[in-house]
Amino acid sequence: MTAPLAATAKPLAPPVGRIRSAVAGLPDSGIVEVVNYGRERPGLIPLWVGEGDLATPAPIGAAATAALQDGQTFYTYQRGIPPVRAALADYLNGLYDGLALPPERVFLTSSGMQAIMLSVQMLIEPGDEVVMLTPVWPNIFNAVAILGGRPVPVAMDFSAEGWSVDFDRLAAACGPRTKAIFVNTPSNPTGWMMPKADMRRLVDLVRARGLWLIADEVYSRITYDGGAAGPSFLTLMEPEEPLLVVNSFSKNWAMTGWRIGWLVAPASLGQVIENLVQYNISGVPTFLQYGALAALREGAGMVEDMRRRCAEGRALVSARLGRLPRVRYAPPAGAFYAFFAVAGETDSRALALRLVDEVGVGLAPGSAFGPGGEGFLRLCFACSATRLSEAMDRLDAALT
Amino acid sequence: MTAPLAATAKPLAPPVGRIRSAVAGLPDSGIVEVVNYGRERPGLIPLWVGEGDLATPAPIGAAATAALQDGQTFYTYQRGIPPVRAALADYLNGLYDGLALPPERVFLTSSGMQAIMLSVQMLIEPGDEVVMLTPVWPNIFNAVAILGGRPVPVAMDFSAEGWSVDFDRLAAACGPRTKAIFVNTPSNPTGWMMPKADMRRLVDLVRARGLWLIADEVYSRITYDGGAAGPSFLTLMEPEEPLLVVNSFSKNWAMTGWRIGWLVAPASLGQVIENLVQYNISGVPTFLQYGALAALREGAGMVEDMRRRCAEGRALVSARLGRLPRVRYAPPAGAFYAFFAVAGETDSRALALRLVDEVGVGLAPGSAFGPGGEGFLRLCFACSATRLSEAMDRLDAALT
Repeated sequence: MTAPLAATAKPLAPPVGRIRSAVAGLPDSGIVEVVNYGRERPGLIPLWVGEGDLATPAPIGAAATAALQDGQTFYTYQRGIPPVRAALADYLNGLYDGLALPPERVFLTSSGMQAIMLSVQMLIEPGDEVVMLTPVWPNIFNAVAILGGRPVPVAMDFSAEGWSVDFDRLAAACGPRTKAIFVNTPSNPTGWMMPKADMRRLVDLVRARGLWLIADEVYSRITYDGGAAGPSFLTLMEPEEPLLVVNSFSKNWAMTGWRIGWLVAPASLGQVIENLVQYNISGVPTFLQYGALAALREGAGMVEDMRRRCAEGRALVSARLGRLPRVRYAPPAGAFYAFFAVAGETDSRALALRLVDEVGVGLAPGSAFGPGGEGFLRLCFACSATRLSEAMDRLDAALT
Repeated sequence: MTAPLAATAKPLAPPVGRIRSAVAGLPDSGIVEVVNYGRERPGLIPLWVGEGDLATPAPIGAAATAALQDGQTFYTYQRGIPPVRAALADYLNGLYDGLALPPERVFLTSSGMQAIMLSVQMLIEPGDEVVMLTPVWPNIFNAVAILGGRPVPVAMDFSAEGWSVDFDRLAAACGPRTKAIFVNTPSNPTGWMMPKADMRRLVDLVRARGLWLIADEVYSRITYDGGAAGPSFLTLMEPEEPLLVVNSFSKNWAMTGWRIGWLVAPASLGQVIENLVQYNISGVPTFLQYGALAALREGAGMVEDMRRRCAEGRALVSARLGRLPRVRYAPPAGAFYAFFAVAGETDSRALALRLVDEVGVGLAPGSAFGPGGEGFLRLCFACSATRLSEAMDRLDAALT
């Protein structure tokens, strides 16, 4: 490194400790820790992250490529190009009876994650609280922390029938500094899908307390009850109520690596959201938006393929886990994870690291997902039967 | 819109006024206001935004397309894929004598804008101040405001020789709540390039006051003194000093629509920056990163083409502005804007709107760039001589 050329003052101390403590203290992802531990192991079967083993379907890539070759490489619309916003409104209105969402309520974002970050930027002052049902994908904790807010986890209960919400506990967690409730349904990692009756109770609660509701519906199309989609809060609240619905192209169309999502919000917030997009990233690459448009217009069969593949993975994994007497597990209603506990194993991080070492299977530790998750492991089954069978053979040996 | 299905509590009031006042109060871009006013005018010549009129060079798109077709559509490295980080370090070390930056100091981001947002998230608590030289690209004001911070503008002075910094005024603006100084050199909008002696004085100032320095060097390759690049703060401070350097692929390689930038930071902040990327966007699409890699490896000639095109535009516009007696103007040392004042015109917003109406030329109002900018107009000359000549013919009529 070159020496300072002519500066006369003393160089400053290194910056560790000179940044915000809330940011310096952000935890590393407990999932990524295991991934980093096992990434290079030969022959390891990685089922630790939330994506399948198939690349994006070719027609989506072809549409993006055509737009790129057509020179769509300039600055873009901060809310998304008009045809994408119109197609997203059509897509959602087609999924839910009676919904008549105008394109003005739909905002394209650079991932579901960014939709969460923009929501938090809109709402959270330092000291504000966001109440959230856990176990849950931990990134919401950290988005809130970056804004100086405080995540308030409310653990769900697990039984042989699956996961359930204690509404008394949820209501008691909402205090004078609570600004919003965050719910992810279908849930990553548990696969729980909030029953419609519970959704109505939750709407009652946010109305009674004057709170925002942030609903992460990223897995709404990956469900196993035969319906086209899990129920959406979009059908339960009025257009100008304080509801923000987060969604993404990642899971439905195998587009995890594209970083495109969307936010449905009250139309009156349009200019605010446009400004936030401008001051965070300044929009989604236009040529990628044409890929997203192809997914919406031509991708109904792709979603069905994804759902079928996940249903097969779910059946295989559920049958195999059912034969393991130490395992406590209820097949998920939605999303593409098996989330199971192993009797006698109380340290999920240690167990996940041990499974990497001993049998070459990569799972995510339940402790990464907040209160209620310790003792569980998360296995992504959105992949081939061959790979899943081999993984389950290996887990048999370790978990019997 | 469907009625609430079974919720019993009263629907909440509309959300206007229920979001953070700092975010509700973010100004719309003063540039975008004029763009929206004139966007649909037939025959208008748009020179209002910071991009040229040529699409991204084909080899860059071809590399991204090849990676897309190769199935590079999965989750990615949060700091950038290793070959891109290595190529960025090589690129920077090749530009600056004596620099020996390791790849560990380079972080790929989803645009230069995001590099600024991540920097601000790292540093700014509510009430903290960021001192910045103005006129300047206004997005930095708003990134600071989103974190609850306060931008403190310090206006530069304009004379026949161009723009200059009053260091006494700059030092006086730094108080007990100042956390960082932000400087953009070469400057958007003024084209001012901070002299190396001033850079050393600024380093002295931040060292003496214990401040961070955030340097936006996005235009460092678009300079007109025959050098390969404008000077960089990377050569003036030690690797672990509190310096953050923001840069982007947008301007050098005509990639404004790709949303890829980078941040150079102390290596010790690596895990913090990785976490921030994770919790904001979760990385740049891998297949786009291969486009960026092609730009770095094969794009030296493309940068030269861009610079030559800008030099021709600069010469043409400078000659034409020089013939207008009402115009005050100094040719820029860097970036690709003419920033000029018109005697008797004190309301640049009104003038920009009038030029749209009367002569069909789209310029950005100086008032959009903070203190010191009022009375000026910004014209982007990174485009064809034909288009620029026609625009200058039209401006002759309006500004004579």
